[in-house]
Amino acid sequence: MVDERKAAILRITDVTLDAARELLRRKGFVELLPVIIAPVTDPLRHTTSRATIRAYDQEWYLTTSMIFHKQAAVQVLDKIFCLSPNVRLEPASWGRSGRHLFEFVQLDLEVRDATRDDMLALGEHLLVRIVERIRDACSRELNTLGRDLTKLRAPFARVPYRDAEERYGKGFEERLSCEIEDPIWIVDFPAEVREFYDREDPSRPGVLLDMDLLYPEGYGEALSGGEREHEPGQIRDRIRRQGLDSAVYGSLLAVARPPSAGFGIGIERLVRFLGGLPHVREVRLFPRVPGEPTEM
Amino acid sequence: MVDERKAAILRITDVTLDAARELLRRKGFVELLPVIIAPVTDPLRHTTSRATIRAYDQEWYLTTSMIFHKQAAVQVLDKIFCLSPNVRLEPASWGRSGRHLFEFVQLDLEVRDATRDDMLALGEHLLVRIVERIRDACSRELNTLGRDLTKLRAPFARVPYRDAEERYGKGFEERLSCEIEDPIWIVDFPAEVREFYDREDPSRPGVLLDMDLLYPEGYGEALSGGEREHEPGQIRDRIRRQGLDSAVYGSLLAVARPPSAGFGIGIERLVRFLGGLPHVREVRLFPRVPGEPTEM
Repeated sequence: MVDERKAAILRITDVTLDAARELLRRKGFVELLPVIIAPVTDPLRHTTSRATIRAYDQEWYLTTSMIFHKQAAVQVLDKIFCLSPNVRLEPASWGRSGRHLFEFVQLDLEVRDATRDDMLALGEHLLVRIVERIRDACSRELNTLGRDLTKLRAPFARVPYRDAEERYGKGFEERLSCEIEDPIWIVDFPAEVREFYDREDPSRPGVLLDMDLLYPEGYGEALSGGEREHEPGQIRDRIRRQGLDSAVYGSLLAVARPPSAGFGIGIERLVRFLGGLPHVREVRLFPRVPGEPTEM
Repeated sequence: MVDERKAAILRITDVTLDAARELLRRKGFVELLPVIIAPVTDPLRHTTSRATIRAYDQEWYLTTSMIFHKQAAVQVLDKIFCLSPNVRLEPASWGRSGRHLFEFVQLDLEVRDATRDDMLALGEHLLVRIVERIRDACSRELNTLGRDLTKLRAPFARVPYRDAEERYGKGFEERLSCEIEDPIWIVDFPAEVREFYDREDPSRPGVLLDMDLLYPEGYGEALSGGEREHEPGQIRDRIRRQGLDSAVYGSLLAVARPPSAGFGIGIERLVRFLGGLPHVREVRLFPRVPGEPTEM
């Protein structure tokens, strides 16, 4: 007795991965194998706690994002991407949000000498292309799910963070995502709400050259990225301003990094949006939902 | 200053992944997202120790292989594969073998109602195709590495485990791998040297319907797989015979599984063979070599 709904979702996931890789490969990106444990990982500004293991007399974090490894990788190849499994131990109550798994996969990419504008264009291209492929190749699966997936109209609108906050109040993402009919970019986050590696606009202190994309229909955050800080002095200053331990992140400063920009897009949330699913849990055969025990 | 050798290896890895996926997709396989933490994972017969984290009042193993999740997945889709990151905490001395990383990626696949013969044919097809693609698409990279990668001649010879052991003695894999000019299959492992999930031949008690592939030129083990035990009574018996705790693996018995066969092939070892590299460490930008401390 095959679960047709589950099979349809898994097939959509498969075509999504293929469509993304096909576009990136055509643009000259090289796929890296993921790093899932490392002595240093993304500190993340929100409430996530990180999982650690001890091995060979050292502490290893399970990857929360491959940001630092991506930045180092573009020393060797100028366009790279990775299907990166991440573990973020979110509060158990977030299990009901419909948007959180504590084990999930990000399509994470980085481009040497790229600007935020390049990344906005690439993000739009990627999303538009994936929706096209799913509409073409998965009409039977969309039908099984009862999903009417409409074509995306690019370019997507760009709204500065401060403007969105003024209009919709704090934590505007959810309300804004419910109101829009096409994805929308949030740009220019204030430095205090984001991680230290997002690049500060040299001409507007305190404003970052970064971006988030929101899905329409209330599906929330799609992708997150921007230009990166690459000057050791500036990185040191940002680490200090965020109250992080410079000893912990010191190894990062020792690694040369060229200017770069990139983003990460969560695969389960993307498939949730494509399939019109109530909860990301449905995207996985063995979903890791915060606070829910499991046997497999 | 770009590291041409490293860039060549990363490009070969990228084309390897693409060639493998392209073939599998053409044969109707669906790609699953990997599971990197789970309450149960492959017990493995050799000396590996497993990494664990604690989260949400539960213990989670870092995946040593996706065997049990693959077997459950073929309930939903009949041909599946996954690029599966594995963590196996091998003894520190194994770091010098040239073949061991404690974090690595397996291309792991499983097919419902398949036989070992199907998997022998698929494994050959996959290897032959990948070598062809690398020779075609990466001649410049092979040149950078000074690698003369010759075409593989299929079908590969098949040698029963007992015959190989008789001829080459215990731990024959290394010596045999050095002697051969094409890959060679080792089949019919004795039950006591393998995991409980490898299927026992109903007509030859104690002999398994499984296989390993050895690379030529001393590159050692390439892939490992076979038919799986799927009857609860037989699985219970095998768990008991191996002295494993049936309570720990009890959850597995509760999950229905159809007959299936499959295999896993280590990507780093494959790229090491393709590129003619002295050590698998070279395949990764951030290699996890047993016993070697690292800052990134």
